[in-house]
Amino acid sequence: MSRPITFTLPESIDQREFVVATYLYRTAPGVDIHAAARAIAEMQSTGTWVALERETRTIQERHSARVVAIWEVPDHETELPADHGSRHWVLQIAYPNHNIGGQIPLLLATVYGECASAGEIKLLDLHLPEAFVGAFKGPKFGLDGIRELVGAADRPLLITMLKPAIGLTPKESAEVFYQAAIGGSDGVKDDELLVSQPWSHFIDRVREHERAAQAAFEETGHRTLYFVNITDRPDRLVQNAYRAIEAGASALMVDFVTVGTSALAMLADDPAIAVPIMGHLAFSGAIYASPRTGVSSHLVLGKLPRLAGADIIVYPSPYGTLSFARSKHLRLAGAMTDPFYAIRRTVPAPGGGLHAGMVPRLVDDLGIDFALGAGGAIHGHRQGAAAGARAIRRALDAAARGESLAEAGAASPELAVALEQWPALEPAGS
Amino acid sequence: MSRPITFTLPESIDQREFVVATYLYRTAPGVDIHAAARAIAEMQSTGTWVALERETRTIQERHSARVVAIWEVPDHETELPADHGSRHWVLQIAYPNHNIGGQIPLLLATVYGECASAGEIKLLDLHLPEAFVGAFKGPKFGLDGIRELVGAADRPLLITMLKPAIGLTPKESAEVFYQAAIGGSDGVKDDELLVSQPWSHFIDRVREHERAAQAAFEETGHRTLYFVNITDRPDRLVQNAYRAIEAGASALMVDFVTVGTSALAMLADDPAIAVPIMGHLAFSGAIYASPRTGVSSHLVLGKLPRLAGADIIVYPSPYGTLSFARSKHLRLAGAMTDPFYAIRRTVPAPGGGLHAGMVPRLVDDLGIDFALGAGGAIHGHRQGAAAGARAIRRALDAAARGESLAEAGAASPELAVALEQWPALEPAGS
Repeated sequence: MSRPITFTLPESIDQREFVVATYLYRTAPGVDIHAAARAIAEMQSTGTWVALERETRTIQERHSARVVAIWEVPDHETELPADHGSRHWVLQIAYPNHNIGGQIPLLLATVYGECASAGEIKLLDLHLPEAFVGAFKGPKFGLDGIRELVGAADRPLLITMLKPAIGLTPKESAEVFYQAAIGGSDGVKDDELLVSQPWSHFIDRVREHERAAQAAFEETGHRTLYFVNITDRPDRLVQNAYRAIEAGASALMVDFVTVGTSALAMLADDPAIAVPIMGHLAFSGAIYASPRTGVSSHLVLGKLPRLAGADIIVYPSPYGTLSFARSKHLRLAGAMTDPFYAIRRTVPAPGGGLHAGMVPRLVDDLGIDFALGAGGAIHGHRQGAAAGARAIRRALDAAARGESLAEAGAASPELAVALEQWPALEPAGS
Repeated sequence: MSRPITFTLPESIDQREFVVATYLYRTAPGVDIHAAARAIAEMQSTGTWVALERETRTIQERHSARVVAIWEVPDHETELPADHGSRHWVLQIAYPNHNIGGQIPLLLATVYGECASAGEIKLLDLHLPEAFVGAFKGPKFGLDGIRELVGAADRPLLITMLKPAIGLTPKESAEVFYQAAIGGSDGVKDDELLVSQPWSHFIDRVREHERAAQAAFEETGHRTLYFVNITDRPDRLVQNAYRAIEAGASALMVDFVTVGTSALAMLADDPAIAVPIMGHLAFSGAIYASPRTGVSSHLVLGKLPRLAGADIIVYPSPYGTLSFARSKHLRLAGAMTDPFYAIRRTVPAPGGGLHAGMVPRLVDDLGIDFALGAGGAIHGHRQGAAAGARAIRRALDAAARGESLAEAGAASPELAVALEQWPALEPAGS
């Protein structure tokens, strides 16, 4: 039985009815790329490795994936010798949206289910039609909602990461919380490794930390959200969310990559869960870190959790202790804040070794639409955590007004000390 | 403030109280590996990038991760010149089990949360203490339970993968199901891309396919399980499971990597879900395929889903259409069937382009304790799907009795035809 060639000019498909996936693909020099690309499209839709009678023309027309682009990098125009090294291709495959339905697990299985086990292939991008995205509500609060909750309209936000990560009792961490809050933090988050331990149950933390948030509010008039880590298997995650909210939690945090991105959609879709949700990067490197396999970071940490409803996402900063390219940081922040049908903007929250001296560069990169996540630079400030938070807030406020870090430091003893402890990073390109 | 060196001889930790993770790690030539390993251990437990007063000795003793092994590959005994290429290390880090609690998401965040974003590092192995594993029940049925359900004590099992993957109505796929069942399949599974579509709702498939299974049983006296794909975000997944069981489903299937491995634990732990659960490999390559980042396949597709309760796991066969090393296939099958405290054995189900001619090699690799997953070779058999299933069953039954494929083919016209369509693979090592 002959098989139709499934290469299709992109103009001949209606992008409103297809999910279009873009891949980076490496082959041996002798491989017929048209056959290889078609095999991937078949593997990920109607086909198997033999022709089947029941796989009718009708089924193929309705359901088969179409190869819509094959580009070689670099773009060789002559046949290469067989002893040429491996060849690199960018492929685009279009999947009928009605194959998938409105859910993230089947989206992932469709665009990167079996082909992830079929060679050196990385998922670089996903065009999602409105028909797919329409099944999701996205963030309940998003950037604008969180700005409103904390009363911060025109500057970057500050999220304090509680440290030490593990080992404090709720009463002890509430003292740290209070310091971070009176210093001007817009949010304080748990460590990604801490949910409940013999020493610290999340419900006790909610009670103690929200009390600290209220005390700080009474002193400063500024609200601080507490992102309590409720990570657990999905059924317990929902119960944890209900219990945390009942105990007074102002916000939630989930290690969403380890639980599954669709668990975020479950939480965000639940009308009883009416507080912001923070997604944390933990384990995401397992999926994005390889340059030739896996899924690009702007999808794993940006587009997909935004779709699922993360109000704010903590991701690796390019300027700190983690490894992340600046180009990826910019791309990822864009995936959270660029227009995306009716889906609200997610707050990009770079973190990992950040301090006040990096503020000008971050503002240069992202404008004011981000949250700076800081731990060590707040708790390790020579004058204590309140001063540590105040130093970064000053730097953020100043940058939003167009003042230089030096000017701001001259007017703020806490910032001056911080810049002495951790010198300012030179602006990019200088 | 001085920091203690956290390198610890492995003899000085009690393996019953620690999760021990083994990593592959690449560094630049000049890196101080002791400092780098310690930084990873701190990042993944109590520490941050600056020393903190509140991180007391007590907290460190209770909670900090310990570097217990550093091996270089190859094992250089002299200082290398600074212009030497990158260096490769195997590291072991021990995490106090009480940091984690009995859940998979925090286990992953602990052993591979931030460090996955901190350079070129792959998680190669996990030693899990009984104190951790004791929080899990594992598979409800497992290998022995499934053997009992289908009445197959002493031979490999046969799972038919329904094809075409997408596009048939439930009545049409029930015809295919019936053929596969009378041919002797022990189970028939949905495609990983099909849950519910306008053409085929999973509840309708349960009704039609279970009716076909009953009709086949009445004809042959052999039971065939139907693994219905109920993949969806976690809350809907549970509802789908209940609805499928209410409609008469004999078994369930989940794309567990896309939903999250802990969703399997949620299903397997639920006493109302008293049917076997199949886990499918979809998207797993995103995590294991890179040789230098991510997590090894025997963890992603073996130990972790076994712990979570998968009764059977479909994984890439090394002999078919997917890319998978034979050594990895053996390691993965071992992770499913080797003794693991009180956790039952999971059925290893290699699949992807398998046919009867590969049976001797698979039996040589795995003995009788596996299920062969076949799609194209069943539905594409010249004499139809019943003959296709019969051919592979004959090959499996013969191999279990120590008969050669040639002998078995001489006694079975269906097998003879199959071997003509797809010639036998030479035995390994020949």
